[in-house]
Amino acid sequence: MSTLELEELRVLITALDSELLELLAKRQQYTNSVAETKIRNQIPVRDHKREEQLLIRLIKKGQEYGLDPHYVTQIFHVIIEDSVLNQQALLAERANPGSSLPLNRVAFLGDKGSYSYLATQKYFSRRAGEVLEIGCSSFAEIVEKVESNHADYAVLPIENTTSGSINEVYDLLQHTSLSIIGELTHPIKHAMLVAKETDISKISTLYAHPQVFAQCSHFLAELGNVEVKPCESTSAAMLTVNQINSDSVAAIGSEAGGSLYGLTAIKSNLANQKENHSRFIVVARNVVKVPLQVPAKTTLVMSTVQKPGALVDALLIIKNNQINMTKLESRPIAGNPWEEMFYIDVEGNVQDGPMQKALEELAATTRYFKVLGCYPNEEINATKVAAVNALAE
Amino acid sequence: MSTLELEELRVLITALDSELLELLAKRQQYTNSVAETKIRNQIPVRDHKREEQLLIRLIKKGQEYGLDPHYVTQIFHVIIEDSVLNQQALLAERANPGSSLPLNRVAFLGDKGSYSYLATQKYFSRRAGEVLEIGCSSFAEIVEKVESNHADYAVLPIENTTSGSINEVYDLLQHTSLSIIGELTHPIKHAMLVAKETDISKISTLYAHPQVFAQCSHFLAELGNVEVKPCESTSAAMLTVNQINSDSVAAIGSEAGGSLYGLTAIKSNLANQKENHSRFIVVARNVVKVPLQVPAKTTLVMSTVQKPGALVDALLIIKNNQINMTKLESRPIAGNPWEEMFYIDVEGNVQDGPMQKALEELAATTRYFKVLGCYPNEEINATKVAAVNALAE
Repeated sequence: MSTLELEELRVLITALDSELLELLAKRQQYTNSVAETKIRNQIPVRDHKREEQLLIRLIKKGQEYGLDPHYVTQIFHVIIEDSVLNQQALLAERANPGSSLPLNRVAFLGDKGSYSYLATQKYFSRRAGEVLEIGCSSFAEIVEKVESNHADYAVLPIENTTSGSINEVYDLLQHTSLSIIGELTHPIKHAMLVAKETDISKISTLYAHPQVFAQCSHFLAELGNVEVKPCESTSAAMLTVNQINSDSVAAIGSEAGGSLYGLTAIKSNLANQKENHSRFIVVARNVVKVPLQVPAKTTLVMSTVQKPGALVDALLIIKNNQINMTKLESRPIAGNPWEEMFYIDVEGNVQDGPMQKALEELAATTRYFKVLGCYPNEEINATKVAAVNALAE
Repeated sequence: MSTLELEELRVLITALDSELLELLAKRQQYTNSVAETKIRNQIPVRDHKREEQLLIRLIKKGQEYGLDPHYVTQIFHVIIEDSVLNQQALLAERANPGSSLPLNRVAFLGDKGSYSYLATQKYFSRRAGEVLEIGCSSFAEIVEKVESNHADYAVLPIENTTSGSINEVYDLLQHTSLSIIGELTHPIKHAMLVAKETDISKISTLYAHPQVFAQCSHFLAELGNVEVKPCESTSAAMLTVNQINSDSVAAIGSEAGGSLYGLTAIKSNLANQKENHSRFIVVARNVVKVPLQVPAKTTLVMSTVQKPGALVDALLIIKNNQINMTKLESRPIAGNPWEEMFYIDVEGNVQDGPMQKALEELAATTRYFKVLGCYPNEEINATKVAAVNALAE
């Protein structure tokens, strides 16, 4: 077989990939129709039992075609996740008639190219309407933009798998009247980005957001004698490096973002943890109603009375109502050095009976208590196929 | 639309999924043919430029069909990764004629259901020949099985994203004559597994491998008053819980593994880090030749002479030969309290000119130096599409 035949094979692959895309698009139409029937018949979006049966059948079928069970599982996890997220977005839209805007004005940290910008693009890509991006230079400005009706939504990072919770955002949530209406997780892949062709040994100054420096601390320690300059956002760091245009300065950020500033990566995977994700919340002036068919999360904030075991009592209320807690975060209260504010994420919908009971009990026993928002749970747990390894044998 | 129509839609989706599988299988045949032409014409397996163009075209085509660019990128990253790993396996097989065995005897930690077992299944699923699993109760026993020709391969965990390097395995590598011939990364998803229907509050004893306890330390701290009992492997923990068959004991391990012991999960995602992966190495008695078209990694072990800056000098040799170091791990040398053994992973093939130069220089300047193995790099870096977000707008 010659190189010409390689070209022939590539033509065949290109044609086949188009067929694949066509099928994926058709499948999306079918699952959107499925969502419509689920809305009409009040059927839950997820059905893990059915998904497992589906995966088992696909794995067996795939084996007939000589496909590896792990590969089939991986492909269909992506397909099912996309289908679930689309169905959830559709159901949420229907449950909040009039909430879909032709133009979504979204405030976020930084400018084109920042991680918040990439997360914003991803979140709104599933939603109707155009997006107008409003880049801001601080978290406080972002929240203020929505409060003052200069933006409809804010996208805020709240937690990173490497550097932990973002305290400043939690502290802002303590005082705002805005509601959390959504969440998403976005991979954070740090690369060293330069404006001119250069070598890593020539770099003497690095620009990045302080959180980014924290997430790459091992790499920075190895790098040694380089000056680090904190910027207000990743995109500000990129812009600075673009403007200085020297072979001795670099920014840390995503390759995709950097390319918007003409920067190229000279080293990738700089984060301490290989798997580095940020969780973002989406906030708005009005609460949204999450349909009961969609798995929901609720974020609460509370301060307990000053007596021993008060927090444990509050957590027992949650537990005794069979509600699963997914996160507990405490933050000091400004001006009250001996008190703490607790932020709690639970799985559940504020319209649910057990949740309403828990919320009433909590409100009655805590000093301060507020529901920050109830929103569709976007952490799609892939359905496990227990038998995948047995099948793989 | 009625529930009957839901069934009709599901029939359509089932038929469409079969078509998808058929296309994926056909695509795999094409890419295997591509591998054959690459072998004959000495063309590298990866071509990031081509992959980027491919992705851009697919994203644009997908948009015509109404598909989200992130979704298309995600699907084709899985497809391309599978294709690259298959091509690499095929090339490696051809470069080592006679190395393919009709039966691969593989030694690993634990028994059916352990993480090492799942990793073994995954690694050998791409390779020719049947697998005979040889469960062992310690890392030393695993290595001994291969050294004494009672097994052909050993699969050993070397590093975990949460708990770090596995020192015991590094220390064994110091003394063995075996070679590293492959690597793989496998997700580690810890769940609480029980034999009888029960509630988490009833569990008084937990069985797991000590590394697993370390990876779930936050969860264990929250859990409070539960006795933890270390086991030699995850599968031993599962077997114990299966045998005790009580509603007050649980094992920590994968759902997929647990199902082989009739255990079910009452709580998932127990690890401190949501993204928890282990890297495994595959070792054998004979070295393998990695074809130059396949991205390779080489693992070195060395101890430097006792003079200031000796390690830095060694690292400079690597750097000055333009070789990228991906990991550096130091371990004390038994009996020599002031000396350290260094394990270094670099990107490169021992047949490469710069690598050979570096190896010669290192051998000449270190006290002790050995190549532990050169093997195909299985960390498939997904080709970034810089324009994905611009396209998404």
